[in-house]
Amino acid sequence: MKIAIAQLNPTIGDLPKNAQKILDAAHQAVAKGARLLLTPELSLCGYPPRDLLLNPGFVQAMDITLRQLARNLPPKLAVLVGTVEENLKAHVNGGKPLFNSIALLEQGSVQRVFHKRLLPTYDVFDENRYFEPGLRANYFTLDNLNIGVTICEDLWNDEEFWGKRSYTTNPIADLANLGVDLTLNLSASPYTFGKQRLRETMLRHCAVRFRQPIIYANQVGGNDDLIFDGCSFALNRQGEIACRLRAFETDLQIVEFDEVQQDLPSSSVVPRFDSEDEEIWHALVLGLRDYTRKCGFSKVVLGLSGGVDSSLVAALATAALGKENVFGVLMPSPHSSEHSISDALGLAENLGIKTTTLRIGELMLDYDKTLAELFSGTESGLAEENIQARIRGNLLMAYSNKFGNLLLSTGNKSEMAVGYCTLYGDMSGGLAVIADVPKTRVYSLCRWLNNHRYFMGGETTPLREIIPQNVITKAPSAELKPGQVDQDSLPPYDILDDILQRLINNYQSAAQIVAAGHDPVVVDRVIQMVARAEFKRRQAPPGVKITDRAFGSGWRMPIASNWVAVNNSYQTKNLPTPSLVSWDGHNAYLQINP
Amino acid sequence: MKIAIAQLNPTIGDLPKNAQKILDAAHQAVAKGARLLLTPELSLCGYPPRDLLLNPGFVQAMDITLRQLARNLPPKLAVLVGTVEENLKAHVNGGKPLFNSIALLEQGSVQRVFHKRLLPTYDVFDENRYFEPGLRANYFTLDNLNIGVTICEDLWNDEEFWGKRSYTTNPIADLANLGVDLTLNLSASPYTFGKQRLRETMLRHCAVRFRQPIIYANQVGGNDDLIFDGCSFALNRQGEIACRLRAFETDLQIVEFDEVQQDLPSSSVVPRFDSEDEEIWHALVLGLRDYTRKCGFSKVVLGLSGGVDSSLVAALATAALGKENVFGVLMPSPHSSEHSISDALGLAENLGIKTTTLRIGELMLDYDKTLAELFSGTESGLAEENIQARIRGNLLMAYSNKFGNLLLSTGNKSEMAVGYCTLYGDMSGGLAVIADVPKTRVYSLCRWLNNHRYFMGGETTPLREIIPQNVITKAPSAELKPGQVDQDSLPPYDILDDILQRLINNYQSAAQIVAAGHDPVVVDRVIQMVARAEFKRRQAPPGVKITDRAFGSGWRMPIASNWVAVNNSYQTKNLPTPSLVSWDGHNAYLQINP
Repeated sequence: MKIAIAQLNPTIGDLPKNAQKILDAAHQAVAKGARLLLTPELSLCGYPPRDLLLNPGFVQAMDITLRQLARNLPPKLAVLVGTVEENLKAHVNGGKPLFNSIALLEQGSVQRVFHKRLLPTYDVFDENRYFEPGLRANYFTLDNLNIGVTICEDLWNDEEFWGKRSYTTNPIADLANLGVDLTLNLSASPYTFGKQRLRETMLRHCAVRFRQPIIYANQVGGNDDLIFDGCSFALNRQGEIACRLRAFETDLQIVEFDEVQQDLPSSSVVPRFDSEDEEIWHALVLGLRDYTRKCGFSKVVLGLSGGVDSSLVAALATAALGKENVFGVLMPSPHSSEHSISDALGLAENLGIKTTTLRIGELMLDYDKTLAELFSGTESGLAEENIQARIRGNLLMAYSNKFGNLLLSTGNKSEMAVGYCTLYGDMSGGLAVIADVPKTRVYSLCRWLNNHRYFMGGETTPLREIIPQNVITKAPSAELKPGQVDQDSLPPYDILDDILQRLINNYQSAAQIVAAGHDPVVVDRVIQMVARAEFKRRQAPPGVKITDRAFGSGWRMPIASNWVAVNNSYQTKNLPTPSLVSWDGHNAYLQINP
Repeated sequence: MKIAIAQLNPTIGDLPKNAQKILDAAHQAVAKGARLLLTPELSLCGYPPRDLLLNPGFVQAMDITLRQLARNLPPKLAVLVGTVEENLKAHVNGGKPLFNSIALLEQGSVQRVFHKRLLPTYDVFDENRYFEPGLRANYFTLDNLNIGVTICEDLWNDEEFWGKRSYTTNPIADLANLGVDLTLNLSASPYTFGKQRLRETMLRHCAVRFRQPIIYANQVGGNDDLIFDGCSFALNRQGEIACRLRAFETDLQIVEFDEVQQDLPSSSVVPRFDSEDEEIWHALVLGLRDYTRKCGFSKVVLGLSGGVDSSLVAALATAALGKENVFGVLMPSPHSSEHSISDALGLAENLGIKTTTLRIGELMLDYDKTLAELFSGTESGLAEENIQARIRGNLLMAYSNKFGNLLLSTGNKSEMAVGYCTLYGDMSGGLAVIADVPKTRVYSLCRWLNNHRYFMGGETTPLREIIPQNVITKAPSAELKPGQVDQDSLPPYDILDDILQRLINNYQSAAQIVAAGHDPVVVDRVIQMVARAEFKRRQAPPGVKITDRAFGSGWRMPIASNWVAVNNSYQTKNLPTPSLVSWDGHNAYLQINP
């Protein structure tokens, strides 16, 4: 039996267009001789639909669309479509009103509906908010083949692989006990870097343990902060890769189940990326392109400072949308260095994008004049630095409003973590492209880009510099006052990023980070800065998530909290109760800014 | 047996200070002869702690603090403290790592720990993200009294009252079957207007149905977007109010369980507020005060436009923090009317707050000059209007940065819903005080304020105007271009607010809203505007939640979504599949702005 995997890129909520994509895939599948077509989890509405699911009209529209799709599908093809089904017993038995479901469409109608059993409710996932878990093992028989159906998380609970359980049941074990011939997994699994290796290792373990071929169909595309990387694959009974689809692109491939060998012979296997930088590059390009297009934009604008962050974002935008759709604005102030202009212009020339230069010196003076009486007797400092950044934000938004270009913000994860950025200034924009990319990774992406022929022309293009060398080698600076460099306010980025990785991604305590060799004073200061910047992050644009813990929909921290201030007392178990702990609060607007 | 209810106001994560509050309450309780002290849900860390719970160091610190608190409590007092307990079997059985718990402290140690059974995971609640539900009925015996323990949501699932179940079990039914003498409910139940009436009606039903006195202890105080109103109360076996604590203030009261009558005799009963406006006023004052103070600020700043929104916020801030801690900035442009200045100054005089006036005409000209070449050949419009709003935002943030005043943003819910506001302009600020207050309610709050002696001096003060009459009677206008009024771009506010209430709070479809008598064209336009403003709301400051559905932590909508654009086709079941739906996207930066 030939089984087609359709790795689709839906737009959230666009039911007719998503249904059309499934229909198109069905026609391709039939042309290639397939008997069964797989589509990703919630392929009809796109994943994640979030609170659209609370809208009864939306749920009803999905049902209408599903039935109409069933009628329009080619005969003799069975199609698995991701959708929701109402939990009709919810009011009587208690429970959420929907099931996250896979519908089996065949012969013009909905033949069966399968319910997801394990519902992720952590990080970016909120499935318990909407869905009731299914209670039964899901399988169906097609032409004498017994096919097990699992949905994404259903296969992420093998206690042998993980060394622990996250849920009570292990659906693939139930399916193996029932004797299915192969197991499908229909997913919408967000990208984080290195995750594909984990998926393949984990499912290999399952294939071998339960002696079952597994076909894994994943969504592809960017939806707000989440990137879905595709990389759908199939494993034979020995856990070997029999097929792998493309990363970060839509794709459709056939795998054939050999009914004599009861296994999947090898077919098309797209290689995985060589380098982490290459993988992250493509993830960011997809995230940028899809957010821009799915929001109805074709063009973007960004500020070019001559720094490494805006240079990388400009390159990403050019790769994602084409050089004719990227506009750069240089906004030098009297504090800007000569190289900030020459580096930005050099970058623009390398990319072939248009720019303009708007000098902001007069505007700065005018703000000073407007505020002179009010600010008389105070020293110039953070407030004046922020005015500069916000003048730039205002000019960029004016361009965006006037010409309809989406404004890209260019802050990296290290800055966003410690609040080394100006709210309503450089944080302005519709998408924060590299908000989950640590500064050290920004550098390595730039170096990778300069050493890689891929960009703008493929293997036949001669190797050439994209990011001017000086951008990579000069000391990073916000240039908001004379002679300023980032390291006036922050630890060196290799140290900062290691501390942040431990704190944010590894959930380490200050004591553990210090035990790893970091200076206790620096660690304490970084932890304080991260907590105090919460109010800024709350107002940041969506960022493209590439790590297992990003600031965004999966990061839910209180703002008016005092945990970090009292945290240190607990590190030594030298508890300050019952005396009151003195703390200056996170006096949010007075803290460090570039 | 005398039972003390401590209605506490914790700061999230400030374990030593929160423990100190419990300790102080314990001493008061002992002085009043109490045998048992009740504190709210998660009283040790404050509710909601959110992702602090993912930090192992935080959980460990709670455990240390709890044990130390137990040792410090007065002897012969039993104390129920809200805390978390680790789920030690999580890795083996599957499940979340924590239980939302109540610890019984007595004789220097933790005697018992009870687990919350029903975990809310909807609206602003994410409890399934952190907690495993408890499986057993919770009760303990104290001096021969059998006392049932429930935690907040545990009592919100009576199928007779609601006409449906939300969860499988009903903990109070289990406790009644076990024959407890009374049931406690330790809560952190966020305020929404009218909710206290619902709580009392619902628990009255439970008291009568299960023939049990119920003592309900609620948290008080503002934590980010959530207000906890307190209003703890006790019901006798007939479901009558035996005691009610104050609204929006910390409080401690004693109720006495009469062991002969097996009931609670009546004690102190604070009356409920007379009017909705009065209740909402106090909620907003508390939300504003607590966010400001818990973030470490004492002073606030805001722009005064002479309009009704900024006037109300200034009055709220003055009530919350004192007139000496509120600073108003007037920023007239050449488009500002004379009354915008006189009304703002009149308001400031009525409130006794200081102001300054910064004229922005020159800055506007300077932006025009800076952008002249780039914008040449285009007509002045939305981009220029937004520049004005963002100049004001920049000046206000400069003041905030310079002097350490928290900036309050003044947009109302109607504006936030339809995007009639400028991102990085009037949306700037640390707290959006009235972001959940519809415009029609803004007016009624202003009228209430002017007719109420409460404000600034109590009953002995003569009745006087606070909000100048002209602010209330003039046509609302953003004054970003000559002659502009809100109703150039929006339907009349009484119509808009009714449509928004139906759409947002009542989950109605366009068809239902039209059936209620609204113009289909207007309804369609409003629904489109709400969807297209999602990107703005994502970057808004936290707002104080006063309705059952606010834009904030409980509103999780996708941005890059196309649902609304295709929605109308489904209203008529005239499905456009398979043709593609043409849509100009939510070209976010080009849409209506004042």
